[in-house]
Amino acid sequence: MQSSFRETIRRLVEHRLFQPVVIGIILLNGLVIVAESYQPGDSFLLLLDTIIVWIFVVELVLKMIGLGVRGYFSERWNIFDFTIVALSLAFYNTPLVSVLRLIRVLRLIRMIPAIPALRKIIDSLMRSLPALTGILGLTALIFSIYAIIGTTFFRGVLPYEFFGSFHTSLFTLLQVVTFESWASQVARPVIAEIPWAWFYFVSFIVIGALVILNLVVAVILDYLGHEDEEAQKENMDRLYRENEALRQDIQEIKEILLRDKER
Amino acid sequence: MQSSFRETIRRLVEHRLFQPVVIGIILLNGLVIVAESYQPGDSFLLLLDTIIVWIFVVELVLKMIGLGVRGYFSERWNIFDFTIVALSLAFYNTPLVSVLRLIRVLRLIRMIPAIPALRKIIDSLMRSLPALTGILGLTALIFSIYAIIGTTFFRGVLPYEFFGSFHTSLFTLLQVVTFESWASQVARPVIAEIPWAWFYFVSFIVIGALVILNLVVAVILDYLGHEDEEAQKENMDRLYRENEALRQDIQEIKEILLRDKER
Amino acid sequence: MQSSFRETIRRLVEHRLFQPVVIGIILLNGLVIVAESYQPGDSFLLLLDTIIVWIFVVELVLKMIGLGVRGYFSERWNIFDFTIVALSLAFYNTPLVSVLRLIRVLRLIRMIPAIPALRKIIDSLMRSLPALTGILGLTALIFSIYAIIGTTFFRGVLPYEFFGSFHTSLFTLLQVVTFESWASQVARPVIAEIPWAWFYFVSFIVIGALVILNLVVAVILDYLGHEDEEAQKENMDRLYRENEALRQDIQEIKEILLRDKER
Amino acid sequence: MQSSFRETIRRLVEHRLFQPVVIGIILLNGLVIVAESYQPGDSFLLLLDTIIVWIFVVELVLKMIGLGVRGYFSERWNIFDFTIVALSLAFYNTPLVSVLRLIRVLRLIRMIPAIPALRKIIDSLMRSLPALTGILGLTALIFSIYAIIGTTFFRGVLPYEFFGSFHTSLFTLLQVVTFESWASQVARPVIAEIPWAWFYFVSFIVIGALVILNLVVAVILDYLGHEDEEAQKENMDRLYRENEALRQDIQEIKEILLRDKER
Repeated sequence: MQSSFRETIRRLVEHRLFQPVVIGIILLNGLVIVAESYQPGDSFLLLLDTIIVWIFVVELVLKMIGLGVRGYFSERWNIFDFTIVALSLAFYNTPLVSVLRLIRVLRLIRMIPAIPALRKIIDSLMRSLPALTGILGLTALIFSIYAIIGTTFFRGVLPYEFFGSFHTSLFTLLQVVTFESWASQVARPVIAEIPWAWFYFVSFIVIGALVILNLVVAVILDYLGHEDEEAQKENMDRLYRENEALRQDIQEIKEILLRDKER
Repeated sequence: MQSSFRETIRRLVEHRLFQPVVIGIILLNGLVIVAESYQPGDSFLLLLDTIIVWIFVVELVLKMIGLGVRGYFSERWNIFDFTIVALSLAFYNTPLVSVLRLIRVLRLIRMIPAIPALRKIIDSLMRSLPALTGILGLTALIFSIYAIIGTTFFRGVLPYEFFGSFHTSLFTLLQVVTFESWASQVARPVIAEIPWAWFYFVSFIVIGALVILNLVVAVILDYLGHEDEEAQKENMDRLYRENEALRQDIQEIKEILLRDKER
Repeated sequence: MQSSFRETIRRLVEHRLFQPVVIGIILLNGLVIVAESYQPGDSFLLLLDTIIVWIFVVELVLKMIGLGVRGYFSERWNIFDFTIVALSLAFYNTPLVSVLRLIRVLRLIRMIPAIPALRKIIDSLMRSLPALTGILGLTALIFSIYAIIGTTFFRGVLPYEFFGSFHTSLFTLLQVVTFESWASQVARPVIAEIPWAWFYFVSFIVIGALVILNLVVAVILDYLGHEDEEAQKENMDRLYRENEALRQDIQEIKEILLRDKER
Repeated sequence: MQSSFRETIRRLVEHRLFQPVVIGIILLNGLVIVAESYQPGDSFLLLLDTIIVWIFVVELVLKMIGLGVRGYFSERWNIFDFTIVALSLAFYNTPLVSVLRLIRVLRLIRMIPAIPALRKIIDSLMRSLPALTGILGLTALIFSIYAIIGTTFFRGVLPYEFFGSFHTSLFTLLQVVTFESWASQVARPVIAEIPWAWFYFVSFIVIGALVILNLVVAVILDYLGHEDEEAQKENMDRLYRENEALRQDIQEIKEILLRDKER
């Protein structure tokens, strides 16, 4: 009887309307959170929010019963899902309002595992990360070197938040590499005091642009490569197999002829 | 007799000079609108504008007679065309000057269905949209989460139009993701008050850049894929067909030889 | 004797050191012009400049004699070259100092036809232009529509040089599409007065970005297409030819066998 | 005995833990330098720095003994490595504090030859440089021409650091081409005085964007070309070889049949 109960739950969980309903509730959750940002502390919205959290808990328990605890946790996205709901519950009555609000918002990330199209994008992003470690490492190295040089030489020229210490220099370099007021706010005032600083900024922009360009190319190649190679390999494999068959046929004919001759 | 009249109109509408004349009138319409922006209310320009609207109406009626009402509306761009001209006529004598002016300008969009090169670009843009829904959905999710966090924590730090409410936060995030004064006007003042905000901005910029990069790659792949795959498929299909023919020939030879032996 | 004189000139013009010397003089010309920008009116530099112009004239005359006037003008880049040198000479003693200086600088463009690598880039840029007419036309249409809307509705909100008239609106839209202070200097002040203007700017940025993305993709595809298609076509043609040869061989074998049987 | 000593050193240098330890020390060096930027002149950090320099010297000497002086310098990256360590030692007790600090930071670049992933990126960047000389030359030419025009005509309009002389104009053009405050800080004030300057800025932005676009395309093509061509060539070569084998088989069959007939 317990087994048939679990079977019923599994059928419910795998019903083709189950997931759309869950997505709908997450969307509603989003609307509630947005509405709350306009009317903080509205009691109706808070009630709705509480109901949604409990629906999430029920959904999670149903899934764990239906798929079994092992089956449920065997998929990585479910671990992520579980963590968010568990945190929602754990910090439900926290006196730390900021943490409470943050977790309330993070619940929206449940949209990613719930909608296959989003899950696919994140999965492919994750898969392309290893190919980028080299370039990310190089970026970190270049940023570090320029940040230390900047801190050492331009410390006193601009206010503290620009080149005052290592971490503010890193932030300033991010501003420079995104071309945001790099000349008007950062480079020109520094060059006015330290003339050779033009080389520092120009070289950083050129190197930064080159590295970013390489990063983009690496990502594109990574995608192109996988798709193209697989399609081409399949085509080629089919051609090879066909050629192999042709060859065997011809070999057989040769053998027939040679046996004919021997007779 | 009625049929021959319709036939005459159809020949006129499908004449190779009909479309260029229409394009010419739309261009003239553009010049009139630009001229009017320099001399608002000039009576000669207003007269010209009225004449052009009536020419558009005549053109539309001719097309509907020539192609038949069904034939005309069977093409989607014609529905678009009809709507614009109908709106031009409907709001011709409106007291709402702003609506009048807006529709007058929108008439220029008729250029798109009129010129094949433009229609082609819009068509291919439309076709690539479904491939982008996933990424657009993810972008909407990321923007929403960051906007709510921004509204919750930075509400009081900057003036109302930056993080005052959900919609102003969305606008500010669009400014940040286009790298427009993101550090000098938005991030630096916020970080000065709330030090951990650096993580908010840096993570948003990195994630935003990654997602945009993915979007670009998706579009490029979409285009490349269609073109490349078709060309390669054709080539491969031809090779397969040729191989098939070779194989049949060899099979026939084998059969001849085997029959020889049996005799 | 006249013919042998021309032959000598042609040999000189086509000598492998002739072009490098010309490139060297153009480079020297560049240095002279840069030096003059630091010391305007220096008599030595002006003398050098005069000498260089006359060297250019001599070079041009030599080329025209060596290759014949028709042969010289048959190459399009030579017409360009001739125009620049002719203008240099024509405006040599002009009282209009600005024109004089402009032409002096334009002489540096001679570098492009002189160095093959540069000529190749410009040639390929020119060749990709026809593929871009559609997108450029669409860009012009979108800019015009938004410029007229901007002029009509935002005329009084910002100073004249932003949306005061059609041409200033076009310039402002170029500023917006390059993301330069689009929010801080243009959009925010307008939205503060006309709230619905947010839709104007957000839609323009999204459409603008999409069109630019398309333009980039079109250029990449254009390049990729030409290179790839040619290489693949060659490969495939070779495969087809080989298959054809195989087929003929097999056909011959079949005929031999059938003739055998008939005997 | 000397040979066996060298053999031991070589085994040590080529041990699979040797390189990771070196990378660890370079990372530690980075941490020390960052820590020193927060606490300049801290005696413990200075001691650590001295120890690290001597470890580097020992590492270098070990490698030179193990691989032999010739073997060591036969790899280009080792020359680079040697230069940095030699400079570190040479300027160890310099009174020029700036030079000392600069070299201390440059030691971090040793990370690149030490980590294969980074070395690979730099290598491939270096390899793609020759393909870019044409475009870089064109960029230099365009920048020079616009810088001279800017210096000649806008010298008096803006403060000296914008168009005051050739080199400041170059810097301003870099600012314009990165779209940094190009309109608000540079173009608008100039156009307010010299109306035709709009053409100067618009044309520079369009040409600059086109050239940068071409540069990006060239780099992508360069990468794509190498990978794709090699993969396709290999596939095609295999097909050709197989076809060749098929042909020989068929040829043999034909010969057998013809010999049969002759008997």
